[in-house]
Amino acid sequence: MARKAARHPVPARRADAERNIVAILEAGTRLLSCDPGAGVADIAKAAGVGRVTLYAHFPSREELVDAVLNHAVGMADAVLEDESIDTAPAPEAMTGLLRTSWEVLDRHRRLFLAADQVLPTERIREHHRRPLRRVERLIARGQRDGDFRTDLPLAWLVTAFFAIVHSAAQEREAGRLEPEEVERVLVTTMLSLLSPPA
Amino acid sequence: MARKAARHPVPARRADAERNIVAILEAGTRLLSCDPGAGVADIAKAAGVGRVTLYAHFPSREELVDAVLNHAVGMADAVLEDESIDTAPAPEAMTGLLRTSWEVLDRHRRLFLAADQVLPTERIREHHRRPLRRVERLIARGQRDGDFRTDLPLAWLVTAFFAIVHSAAQEREAGRLEPEEVERVLVTTMLSLLSPPA
Repeated sequence: MARKAARHPVPARRADAERNIVAILEAGTRLLSCDPGAGVADIAKAAGVGRVTLYAHFPSREELVDAVLNHAVGMADAVLEDESIDTAPAPEAMTGLLRTSWEVLDRHRRLFLAADQVLPTERIREHHRRPLRRVERLIARGQRDGDFRTDLPLAWLVTAFFAIVHSAAQEREAGRLEPEEVERVLVTTMLSLLSPPA
Repeated sequence: MARKAARHPVPARRADAERNIVAILEAGTRLLSCDPGAGVADIAKAAGVGRVTLYAHFPSREELVDAVLNHAVGMADAVLEDESIDTAPAPEAMTGLLRTSWEVLDRHRRLFLAADQVLPTERIREHHRRPLRRVERLIARGQRDGDFRTDLPLAWLVTAFFAIVHSAAQEREAGRLEPEEVERVLVTTMLSLLSPPA
């Protein structure tokens, strides 16, 4: 009885709320990836919900951008799922990971700029914890196999990876790095940084 | 006559305003370097001015932090003034520059965190244009002398320098990098990144 009573109308409202949230996050990802300055009203419109509904779920632009970033990184992380990261020689796997990360990041580049404008770098880094764990696992394997240097701490090498990829996205957006140059620059930079000292 | 009339009382007021601005920027640098969350009211108090006066010059916390960062980077840039940057062999000059930059940055580390919370990375980078020009000059000289790599664009190497030093400051603040480790990690990372490929 209690169970049945609980199914109406709360679950229906909850299902509506979930549908609205998903629609808002998808619209937010789409719009902010085109224009980092996209407004909350435009995102509500594209999601097919009212501004009041949007604000009920995300009381500030900052909270909305934070949630959209989380959504986008979650999708991106799924794309990075590739078993060769654990099987190919570490330098080769790193090259592959950089290419894939870059493609995903390039698609959402403007969203990261939007995030960078309202969220501290530390918070943006937290959102990347899952994909960064893949990077960490790969660098640790390269260190064990003797392919990557061990004279610098693992955590620092992961941080450098994040900083370098993040900078490349900003340089590309600012027009200081040619789109066709980015992949080579990223791979060359990271492999120089990871190689054992001569 | 006009000249004499113009001297009173406007210049007196202007001199007052300039004194207040300098007091606010100095207090802001001091307080935000201790606590990135320092409030506008505390900064006004430490500067010996009223909140209304502070808001008249800096209408928002963001504008205040922006001006404080500009002030701090200007002072830091003066510290970096050292002719050995143009005379010592480039790798040695880079090591010296990293040590000095790091000392200055470490002193103002929390101020950069405050800035990172309210300003986009692009804006923070703009404030560093002057010190980054020193870095650029040094890397360019190293490239000409054959000490530094030429297979990556100069502008990208300067960006990587900024990203790496910035990341080290954040890692240090987050307790992920030991204070006594930072200098070695920075120098090792940058020289690996700048060395010509084997």
